[in-house]
Amino acid sequence: MTSRTPQQSAPGDRNYTFASRMAHTPRSFIREILKVTERPEVISFAGGLPNPALIDVEGIRNAADAVLKADGRSALQYSTSEGFLPLRQFIAGRYKKRLGLSVLPEEILITNGSQQCLDLVGKILIDQGDPIAIERPGYLGAIQAFSLYAPVFHPIPLGHEGPDTALLADLCRSQDLRFFYGIPNSQNPSGITYSAASRRELGSVLADTGTLFIEDDAYGELDFSGHSLPSLWEYLPEQTILTGSFSKILAPGMRLGWVAAPAKIMEQLVVAKQASDLHSNYLSQRIAYEYLIQNDIDVHIRKIRQAYRHQCELMVQVMKETLPDSVSYRKPQGGMFLWLTLPPGCSSMEVFNRALRENVAVLPGLPFYLDGGGTDTLRLNFSNASDEQITEGMTRLAAVIRHECGR
Amino acid sequence: MTSRTPQQSAPGDRNYTFASRMAHTPRSFIREILKVTERPEVISFAGGLPNPALIDVEGIRNAADAVLKADGRSALQYSTSEGFLPLRQFIAGRYKKRLGLSVLPEEILITNGSQQCLDLVGKILIDQGDPIAIERPGYLGAIQAFSLYAPVFHPIPLGHEGPDTALLADLCRSQDLRFFYGIPNSQNPSGITYSAASRRELGSVLADTGTLFIEDDAYGELDFSGHSLPSLWEYLPEQTILTGSFSKILAPGMRLGWVAAPAKIMEQLVVAKQASDLHSNYLSQRIAYEYLIQNDIDVHIRKIRQAYRHQCELMVQVMKETLPDSVSYRKPQGGMFLWLTLPPGCSSMEVFNRALRENVAVLPGLPFYLDGGGTDTLRLNFSNASDEQITEGMTRLAAVIRHECGR
Repeated sequence: MTSRTPQQSAPGDRNYTFASRMAHTPRSFIREILKVTERPEVISFAGGLPNPALIDVEGIRNAADAVLKADGRSALQYSTSEGFLPLRQFIAGRYKKRLGLSVLPEEILITNGSQQCLDLVGKILIDQGDPIAIERPGYLGAIQAFSLYAPVFHPIPLGHEGPDTALLADLCRSQDLRFFYGIPNSQNPSGITYSAASRRELGSVLADTGTLFIEDDAYGELDFSGHSLPSLWEYLPEQTILTGSFSKILAPGMRLGWVAAPAKIMEQLVVAKQASDLHSNYLSQRIAYEYLIQNDIDVHIRKIRQAYRHQCELMVQVMKETLPDSVSYRKPQGGMFLWLTLPPGCSSMEVFNRALRENVAVLPGLPFYLDGGGTDTLRLNFSNASDEQITEGMTRLAAVIRHECGR
Repeated sequence: MTSRTPQQSAPGDRNYTFASRMAHTPRSFIREILKVTERPEVISFAGGLPNPALIDVEGIRNAADAVLKADGRSALQYSTSEGFLPLRQFIAGRYKKRLGLSVLPEEILITNGSQQCLDLVGKILIDQGDPIAIERPGYLGAIQAFSLYAPVFHPIPLGHEGPDTALLADLCRSQDLRFFYGIPNSQNPSGITYSAASRRELGSVLADTGTLFIEDDAYGELDFSGHSLPSLWEYLPEQTILTGSFSKILAPGMRLGWVAAPAKIMEQLVVAKQASDLHSNYLSQRIAYEYLIQNDIDVHIRKIRQAYRHQCELMVQVMKETLPDSVSYRKPQGGMFLWLTLPPGCSSMEVFNRALRENVAVLPGLPFYLDGGGTDTLRLNFSNASDEQITEGMTRLAAVIRHECGR
């Protein structure tokens, strides 16, 4: 072995071989779109941000100061992979109070936002080529997270009441399905909330076939009525992996979510979590817990619900007044999104492009479909726009749709 | 489809099928050991925690308050996958200042501690069965992170000057090695710092064979002398993926690390990061940046270096006075660990067990070896113990070793 100084390689001309999973993973379409919609003059309904005016900055500031003053040395040290136990106890208590669910603190793992739950679930459950089922249209973040583990996706169409359980039953019987992933409350992107009957049917199919359900509950607290329909955990605690998030009710920048799972699954999730990043941000866990004991989170959530309900109703009202009847939609029960279907033959990419010229950004539904469908769909976010922006933006959008879709 | 309520499955008796990668992943031995060493009467050299007395709690508290006061609404909102640009610019500037390296802010991604870098690297580079090389003994966190992507590990023995580059060269030529992973500065667990000559040799081998180097630099700032040897990035900017961490110099509880990589690799890392958890904790990124502009981090790091140097020297001194000459060690140039090799035939698991009965916890070296070797090695952490604990604990440990190893 000579000891010469190696020559520098010429910058930028080298090619690399990446793991085959990277070829399966869509670069986020939303991410690319959001870049073009960042100009300040653009009214954007394309993103999925909570309303920043509804973040209790002062409350969080007080909580941060209290934690760092009283116990900073501990709050800034390494901690356990599972997460801060009092925070997990709080979450368990809230499941009991809100949904009547028996979830043990030991069955809860704190994650970096609920997006990380999807990565951990993929990691522990999916081998390359394994079949999984996902709603159609399906949440893009889940499609991305699971894609990295190279499953075969089986889309299950969502009707107004919930997923097509007959199709799911057939699939569960014909394939060794690793799981069905869904968002029963105010689904992203469609806004659909599974009906009580649909939940029971889904539970029945899953019980009969032994299939796991990944229940993403990012929006359960944002039902405008404040009511909650049952979690599948209630029927099938041994077959449900339940994810939750503080992003929509507290603050997304703290990246705090959680996953609840039966003990045997939790063991594997903890191994995967530890290998992935040791543990979630401990300072933020401590701040969030301090906030939750210093403040009444239900009062805060009620405020968010009321604001989003108002924003949604305004968007629907302007739409009714301005859009042709050939555009269909269904008023969501909660969440942050309104989902439109354009008249047959009308392209949402064309509407997107033209709307952007009018300084209005919308999200074409295409990336939510794994099979190339949905070219006539649009997702509109109402949570991060003012009344004026909603009125003006929807009026401009209606003109674009009338023009593009020729009525 | 009937609409009956499904029956609850009996709790705990269900078995699940996990992805095959989970069978490859060792549950952390350290984690299990740390549980038994948590009793307050135990003097522990088993962990790897920074000294909490050296965390600048007041400085971080001031920074947190300043961020939340001036710009809380933004600091608590969603942010970009790459991380807070001014923080990335600060890191790039520090590479320039400390190592003379040209790293662009665009080549830096903020992660949840540097452990997440290892997960992202595994994700984008390793297909099942791919050969990778790692130091022997190797960092346990890397073994765990990479194991989830099911590579074939090839251990490269570490000598006092660095890795066996002749063996690495043979391996690079005979295998389609995805990368070599190493910690050139104050390696965990061995404490070894690669010599300047070893770095040049390594660079030469990598340049000749086109192999990537994953350079984990968790401890580079903790060289007791304050000096730095060249990063491989200096020789091979197109073949080096460099990881860093604020855990050892600021605070581990904020989970802030970073990875620097050439643009084409960075593209893939960002896709993987986004799919994994959207982005790192933004509040902590903002707090860390505020801290770094309000304070002189070099003054703070000098304090940490001096303290660890003292703790290390004390540990070595007590060891010299009390341990038999048949125990070998090499004084580290920095970092947090001292590495012992017991006399031939002496078992570190036996020493561990007996030491624990004397209320001293040490870490047997076994889990750092992928081939079942290292049964006569021990890792001792000196950064998280007081002078009294070091003197008393090492005296007790010496008695145990004399007893167990027959001298």
